[in-house]
Amino acid sequence: MNAKKLITPRKLSGFMELEPAKQVIFDDMIDKIKAVYKNYAFMPLDTPVLELSEILLAKSGGEIDKELYAFTKGDTAVCMRYDLTVPLARFVAMNHPNLTFPFKRYQFGKAYRGERAQKGRFREFVQCDADIVGNDKLPLIADAECVNMACDVFKALDLDIIMHISNRNILFGYAEYLGLQNLTIDILIILDKIGKIGKDNAIGELEKLGINDDKANKLISLTLAQGNFETVLAQIENLSDNETYKKGIAELKELYSYLSSYGLNKASFTLDIGIIRGHNYYTGTVFEAYMPKHPEFGSVCGGGRYDNLAGYYTDKHLPGVGISIGLTRLFDLLDKNNMLPEIKPSNIDLQIIPMGETLHECIKLQAYFKNEIVCELNYDERSFKAKMKEANKRQIPFVLIVGENEIKSGLFALKNMLTGQQYNISKEECLNIIKKHSFQ
Amino acid sequence: MNAKKLITPRKLSGFMELEPAKQVIFDDMIDKIKAVYKNYAFMPLDTPVLELSEILLAKSGGEIDKELYAFTKGDTAVCMRYDLTVPLARFVAMNHPNLTFPFKRYQFGKAYRGERAQKGRFREFVQCDADIVGNDKLPLIADAECVNMACDVFKALDLDIIMHISNRNILFGYAEYLGLQNLTIDILIILDKIGKIGKDNAIGELEKLGINDDKANKLISLTLAQGNFETVLAQIENLSDNETYKKGIAELKELYSYLSSYGLNKASFTLDIGIIRGHNYYTGTVFEAYMPKHPEFGSVCGGGRYDNLAGYYTDKHLPGVGISIGLTRLFDLLDKNNMLPEIKPSNIDLQIIPMGETLHECIKLQAYFKNEIVCELNYDERSFKAKMKEANKRQIPFVLIVGENEIKSGLFALKNMLTGQQYNISKEECLNIIKKHSFQ
Repeated sequence: MNAKKLITPRKLSGFMELEPAKQVIFDDMIDKIKAVYKNYAFMPLDTPVLELSEILLAKSGGEIDKELYAFTKGDTAVCMRYDLTVPLARFVAMNHPNLTFPFKRYQFGKAYRGERAQKGRFREFVQCDADIVGNDKLPLIADAECVNMACDVFKALDLDIIMHISNRNILFGYAEYLGLQNLTIDILIILDKIGKIGKDNAIGELEKLGINDDKANKLISLTLAQGNFETVLAQIENLSDNETYKKGIAELKELYSYLSSYGLNKASFTLDIGIIRGHNYYTGTVFEAYMPKHPEFGSVCGGGRYDNLAGYYTDKHLPGVGISIGLTRLFDLLDKNNMLPEIKPSNIDLQIIPMGETLHECIKLQAYFKNEIVCELNYDERSFKAKMKEANKRQIPFVLIVGENEIKSGLFALKNMLTGQQYNISKEECLNIIKKHSFQ
Repeated sequence: MNAKKLITPRKLSGFMELEPAKQVIFDDMIDKIKAVYKNYAFMPLDTPVLELSEILLAKSGGEIDKELYAFTKGDTAVCMRYDLTVPLARFVAMNHPNLTFPFKRYQFGKAYRGERAQKGRFREFVQCDADIVGNDKLPLIADAECVNMACDVFKALDLDIIMHISNRNILFGYAEYLGLQNLTIDILIILDKIGKIGKDNAIGELEKLGINDDKANKLISLTLAQGNFETVLAQIENLSDNETYKKGIAELKELYSYLSSYGLNKASFTLDIGIIRGHNYYTGTVFEAYMPKHPEFGSVCGGGRYDNLAGYYTDKHLPGVGISIGLTRLFDLLDKNNMLPEIKPSNIDLQIIPMGETLHECIKLQAYFKNEIVCELNYDERSFKAKMKEANKRQIPFVLIVGENEIKSGLFALKNMLTGQQYNISKEECLNIIKKHSFQ
């Protein structure tokens, strides 16, 4: 005997790995999301997982965030992508002359952030992104198209969401109006946390910036404005005559008119000035989807408008709008809350069990069935009883028992595993019954 | 003006990145391969791209091949996977008690080898793998199932291939028979290169190992045996009475009988003792697909039987058989030889072009059409003429021109861009015509 030392098989922590029956559901969700993106005439893109660090870290001046998977290969500093937006920017800047604008692309791919492993956070995660990039200009209707498409995605996934929409010009402009334009970024960081830290702590933090009580209260109160689009718009539209603020109001009104023309159900979206989406690149429309029955899930989809996608790589002005769904996190939430669709242990329509010396005839039967249905030939060496027990456990709907007599007569014993009903019929009749059952 | 220094946008060399219209074809090939695997009752698996180096490099005792993308993150030595087989081994060893055997899984994913960039070699490549893993035992019919499935894959891709099949026990046993059992690995390495270096050089290299001229010629002659299964089997079956050799012959005969029962066309496979598949883990059946009209493509699919999948991680005996298609390389070959299916610049069935103040009505029309066909609303600000020219360039089959009169009358100008024919019809009639055209 070889007394070889075994290595304990294990995977990296923070990396999702599903059992195959759950992977079927994950893949099915991907297919459903992709079908919606395709339906809106988006085309696929697949960029490498690795990028030159110089490219990927342009924003930070090449400084490597501790979170990132960055390393050197030969003489080349490379980094695993942390999102799909920077690679899109690099792609559009590189291929600009050959693209049709507005350029609509979807990308489904894994991204990597090596943050400290914690509940609900993954170091490798599948992003399902779709973006529209304009050449110099991109009308606001593109924003509405993205919001409507995101709503269609959740309809396709059969998940109940409400889309919370805002426009960053509202808080930008209001801060300007209050004379706080030098503090805008700091203010947004605090306002973005209201949900977590509460109103009073937010006021405290604003006051630490030197903002007086009156202004702090006004900022908080505006941020908390949320509800029916028309009602909230009427409440806030005259709060300020600042130009940026007025631009935000006008854009929200225009967006609302488009969403109404799309026929989007008014109960499925809301104006929510508290939607800020961190201190990232968004410049206008911003939106996040929440599940009303599961506020604890947080945002399950986000997106918005950015003025200039690829400013680090090109002088071309490339405004865009996009949506992003973090499917790994969403799937994990649904799974942990027993909200996934029914998990089927196999995709098999029919399993053939050979009895006696019928293996070759069973192969011929498998070849006959497999073009029309999913047919497995059970060539395992276990007992008939064990095979039937396992077929049951795997929820295989039909089993075909093939002995020598069946071969001679051309009539096969088809068993419906759910009802227990057994037929003695030709292979053609078997196929008809199974197809009727599987595709009903 | 901001005199910002731009970073030249570029990607890493050796990484494929397709234009979206070609990515559509790549994705379509994936869908077709996946459909075949599913049809044979395989289930999906998706393992992380990163693995612990200790796990991934178990074979080499943890030594990092220069080719690999290995690095340290925090205190953890990690490595980007270089194939999908080692992760499968790790997964099966980890999850053994929860799996149904024979365990049939497919995996489509990217793998990484940082070899020197050269023509036709990619550092990131998509593998389309399917394997059947048995618990302790796996009958030889599983090998036939894999070969037949691989042939079905190429039928689905509409690519003409011939499957070259051998069994490693033939050459193993023959080397034993010649008393060369201590040199088996070295011999196989040389025999595997005959195609590249030629027969005479191969004899020279064998002689350098101390093998006499007679034995060298016998080895070469056996390796070159290739052709109709029955004919070649008859030629070689009595060459040696070595037990391993006889096992190889018996397995090939049994495999042939199964392939015949599957009804596999005899012209589509051949016995080819020269199929060796490098010095890897295969132990019995080995096969490679070649395109007869394009021998220069080399092998476009390979696979075989391995005795023990996960010996580094578990004492469990896990024999398996699998197939692997390197889709990135295959796609690149087809592309460079103009063998891809027709490339369509867009997937759009209908584009709506608003004229005058009809944008909101056009949104309603888009909402009407989009559930049934792929409908794009052209909200670009270019001239009508420019839009029509572009629709033509993008091969969009139908354009709907919507002016104020059309809205009033409810009759729309639908233009068939291929024939130039123009209809003045209701939206319902438009939908009928387009559906008839798109799904014909």
